[in-house]
Amino acid sequence: MDVSRLLFGRRLANREHEDKKIGWVEAVPAMGLDGLGSSSYGPEAALTILIPLGTLGLFYIGPVMACIVALLAILYFSYRQTLAAYPTNGGAYVVAKENLGEYPSLLAASALMIDYVLNVAVGVSAGVGALVSAIPSLHPYILPLCLGIVLVVMLANLRGTGEAAWLFALPTYVFIICFLGAIGYGLVEFVIGGNPAPVIPPPPLGPVAQGATVWLLMHAFASGCTAMTGVEAVSNGMGSFRQPVMRNAYITLTVIVVILGVLLGGIAVIVTVFEIGAMDQGKEGYQSVLSQLIAAVAGHGAFYYIAMASLLSVLCLSANTSFVGFPRLCQMVAADGYLPKAFAQPGRRLMFTVGILFLSGFAGLLLIVFGGITDNLIPLFAIGAFLTFTISQAGMTLHWRRQSKRHAAKLTMNAIGAMSTGAALIIIMVAKFAEGAWITLMTVPVTIVILKSIKHYYTSLQRELRKPGPITVDDIQPPTVLVIMENWNRLSERAIKFALTISPDVVAVHFIRLGGPGRDEREKALREEWRVEVEEPIAARGLKPPRLMLIPAQFRQLHEPMLRLIEKLDADSPERRVAVLIPETVKDKWWQMLLHMNRAGRLRAKLVRLGGPRLTVATIPWRLYREEQSAP
Amino acid sequence: MDVSRLLFGRRLANREHEDKKIGWVEAVPAMGLDGLGSSSYGPEAALTILIPLGTLGLFYIGPVMACIVALLAILYFSYRQTLAAYPTNGGAYVVAKENLGEYPSLLAASALMIDYVLNVAVGVSAGVGALVSAIPSLHPYILPLCLGIVLVVMLANLRGTGEAAWLFALPTYVFIICFLGAIGYGLVEFVIGGNPAPVIPPPPLGPVAQGATVWLLMHAFASGCTAMTGVEAVSNGMGSFRQPVMRNAYITLTVIVVILGVLLGGIAVIVTVFEIGAMDQGKEGYQSVLSQLIAAVAGHGAFYYIAMASLLSVLCLSANTSFVGFPRLCQMVAADGYLPKAFAQPGRRLMFTVGILFLSGFAGLLLIVFGGITDNLIPLFAIGAFLTFTISQAGMTLHWRRQSKRHAAKLTMNAIGAMSTGAALIIIMVAKFAEGAWITLMTVPVTIVILKSIKHYYTSLQRELRKPGPITVDDIQPPTVLVIMENWNRLSERAIKFALTISPDVVAVHFIRLGGPGRDEREKALREEWRVEVEEPIAARGLKPPRLMLIPAQFRQLHEPMLRLIEKLDADSPERRVAVLIPETVKDKWWQMLLHMNRAGRLRAKLVRLGGPRLTVATIPWRLYREEQSAP
Repeated sequence: MDVSRLLFGRRLANREHEDKKIGWVEAVPAMGLDGLGSSSYGPEAALTILIPLGTLGLFYIGPVMACIVALLAILYFSYRQTLAAYPTNGGAYVVAKENLGEYPSLLAASALMIDYVLNVAVGVSAGVGALVSAIPSLHPYILPLCLGIVLVVMLANLRGTGEAAWLFALPTYVFIICFLGAIGYGLVEFVIGGNPAPVIPPPPLGPVAQGATVWLLMHAFASGCTAMTGVEAVSNGMGSFRQPVMRNAYITLTVIVVILGVLLGGIAVIVTVFEIGAMDQGKEGYQSVLSQLIAAVAGHGAFYYIAMASLLSVLCLSANTSFVGFPRLCQMVAADGYLPKAFAQPGRRLMFTVGILFLSGFAGLLLIVFGGITDNLIPLFAIGAFLTFTISQAGMTLHWRRQSKRHAAKLTMNAIGAMSTGAALIIIMVAKFAEGAWITLMTVPVTIVILKSIKHYYTSLQRELRKPGPITVDDIQPPTVLVIMENWNRLSERAIKFALTISPDVVAVHFIRLGGPGRDEREKALREEWRVEVEEPIAARGLKPPRLMLIPAQFRQLHEPMLRLIEKLDADSPERRVAVLIPETVKDKWWQMLLHMNRAGRLRAKLVRLGGPRLTVATIPWRLYREEQSAP
Repeated sequence: MDVSRLLFGRRLANREHEDKKIGWVEAVPAMGLDGLGSSSYGPEAALTILIPLGTLGLFYIGPVMACIVALLAILYFSYRQTLAAYPTNGGAYVVAKENLGEYPSLLAASALMIDYVLNVAVGVSAGVGALVSAIPSLHPYILPLCLGIVLVVMLANLRGTGEAAWLFALPTYVFIICFLGAIGYGLVEFVIGGNPAPVIPPPPLGPVAQGATVWLLMHAFASGCTAMTGVEAVSNGMGSFRQPVMRNAYITLTVIVVILGVLLGGIAVIVTVFEIGAMDQGKEGYQSVLSQLIAAVAGHGAFYYIAMASLLSVLCLSANTSFVGFPRLCQMVAADGYLPKAFAQPGRRLMFTVGILFLSGFAGLLLIVFGGITDNLIPLFAIGAFLTFTISQAGMTLHWRRQSKRHAAKLTMNAIGAMSTGAALIIIMVAKFAEGAWITLMTVPVTIVILKSIKHYYTSLQRELRKPGPITVDDIQPPTVLVIMENWNRLSERAIKFALTISPDVVAVHFIRLGGPGRDEREKALREEWRVEVEEPIAARGLKPPRLMLIPAQFRQLHEPMLRLIEKLDADSPERRVAVLIPETVKDKWWQMLLHMNRAGRLRAKLVRLGGPRLTVATIPWRLYREEQSAP
């Protein structure tokens, strides 16, 4: 108990839930980490595809990134409209559910869920990639480092990250300042000095192994699109903003998208100017693109380490965006009955514990399977995000069509958004299919089938437990009460006394086990004891004395003869229900479990599972060592 | 269910227990395997100590073995008397309990238990040693082979070995014939031909590294005494003999001891004649003494392989003696309250499952710790056996003194037995202390402390649950019944209906969880539903309608507000007990466990643990999918 208190803090009351709303200054780090962090691996992923072009690649990276920034701009205006239309929660799941129906909403839900999981894996692995660039001796420990970070982020989220807003804000703003500064400085040098010499020259680019093809450029665009993941975070998190909600949301979205756009554009220019290319992350001596960039502009001084530290933090913390979004999404989906109820249950700190554990588990699994290497994970990524964008924008398009007023401009904007993200989605699917996108594409329908099956189960459960209408009370005869009795002691006395309070028809059941010598004597002694200690005192009070039944348990399983007896009683007097009272000593300590047979617990479980619908099973507890003084 | 039926056979009824008695022909293999198997590692252990003497060792092995055979003869006559005095069960535990008191009986019990465990480990490792001698390429797999054999013997015993008597009889008699034959043939050759040439000469003995010392010879004697373990098996197994019990027991004991004596004496002569010494079992090329012996007498033909196969079987099966004795001993000790009750519970096949699992587990652990090498285990062994012998004989001596008639001869015999085994015990303890006997000597008192603590727990438990005397029935007021209700459905209807049959005072308890919008409306709707569907129909019948209570569960733990409510009810009307009814859907499938929160189960467990002594907790079960047609 105390360990969990230390790890997770005190248990929060439900009413404390309201104190956790945030404004835009806190929202930019909280919701923007994913998007801003993407600027690290998006351009790098595009450059990785261009490696075979050698120096020729620098010629194409500009146009590719320009397309991506243009798409980002379209997305910005589309999402502004979504925020306005869904001021409480504008996530793709909700938008699709309200405008497109069940299956599109499940499609959005599974795409989002998959993307959240991938975001953790990609963010953490990219963060560790940055760390390994700065400290190459850590290269052998990539996977353990990744898993360790997932564990820390998980624990922090189980505790609740609300109190640690500065933890997110500090590295985010340091990151923004460092990289905007470095890019700005590099641009100024370029504008003033023509072609500046890098402080530390990046490794030379490879030879031109092939010419550029449309296929290769499509490929680079598709990979670069990972830079746009995370833009939907604001629409998912509308519930977190404090008043004025819309203003906070608009500012947050604008700040995130503008900074991301500037970063992407700036990176494209600088890598061209300083002739920086991508390297193979799986090999020793790997340097990430941003690491080369900072080194080229500013050298390996203190600034380099501050910048890389902030990048590492941002990437690791960008995993946190998933930890905020995934459990909430699962909670909504679970509330609709498509996921187990446990996903909707707030835990000790009002966080959705099950969702957090699930996310960590799957992300950890992905990291293990793919060895913690970002490049391996990138092909799986982005599909989910662009599927989400497309569904969300398509939903918004329909939303505007259904309104009574005409909203031609807004409809057009969202339709452009839907079409452009849809086009990008198709390019990504085609370009990345063989490299791993097929995994994502297969996972989506599987997830949908699981969600539908869960819903089916809950629906049939609800149908079975449907509202009964007004209660009918025809037979309120007291039940026949069977009291399991091992021998006559204070525990059985308590059970018999309770039985007498609920029904005049009480039967004590004693099981006869292994025969052997002395069995008849023991039976006789028990019957005599019963007569003297129970029957006579109760008869003297003018009450009907309880009977004693001795039942052989030839096969040492108590539930079988018990079920037969209950069946017989049910047949003899169908108007009476049957209640079984099982006296049980309560075990507090683990070693007590070893010293008791737990016959009571096992009999109870069997009777509950196998007994008829009219059977009730009750426990009469006895707390060892704590009832010495108490009344029986 | 079907897997366990295939593995373990059908469940046996208690009355089938009587059909399992045996005569002496079956008893010699069943009880003699341990003793006969000892002839393999006893002489070998003595020879191992003599290794430093080289060829000089052959001069001393004869006298050492002669002492051992003499001790065996004394033990034979002592145990004959024990059998006569305790015709139902003459094990050391019982003899000590009846004649020496509690602590000596616990000493005997722990010594026996430790010895049984060691017997499994030693028997199996010696068997695998024999196998490795015959097929040297198996040398790297000693430990896995050992563990595999323990597993097979365990499974066979869980099933019950009664039906497989031939499995024990066949190799036992083959073993006796082969080795008596080989020894006889070797002796005949020796008598006729003087010093015969071995067919396959054993590896030459090492150089004489040191002279014989008293210490070394004591040491050899102590190690050789392991040859006598297993002699007490007949006295422990008296319960298994069919009529005439005494005759069967005498013949069994005589056959076992005579054959063992002849084997030990014969082996001593043959190894001297053929100059056979022990080898290091841990090294490649290891050959056991008996393997060298058969090879020297008869070569590596078919006979060699038949003899070695029977030896291997006898050694592995000798572990089985422990599997017969250990669970029965534990059952007796548990029946006296010194071990958990579970040890006294007959399982599916009327075997004492817990004892069998415990024995296998500990033997496996020992094998792992000691690498499956017999030599490492031998020093721990024999102490337990000789402790048992000594206590048993001392107990018998006192037994005769207490008889009204004088039994001077019998008393003297048992006193000689006690003194000689006691003297051997001291030699073994001293000689083997540093090599590992200290482990056994430390384990004995630890075991005794554990046994005493268990007894203490059961005694205080029994004191707490003591017989209450005649039942007092002063307050038989019906209890206040609290019905946990998540919402109004057929499950809660069933619970309310049952509650009405046991008490007029029924309260439905509904927990209010996370607040949020619409909470007041939901509350209002529930109250209205309750009024229309429950209160009005019941009031119309002229009964007291159940109340509805809405209780906030601010911390999402249902038991805390529930316990507060129960406390309040107890204070308000101390004359009424409280019963809590928890409706619960019954989960049959593992995946249902994932889809339900098991709130009912957790609430039940908490209330049972933490509720007051007057609280009863009952489950109203609902079996999903199987009650569609049944009455509510």
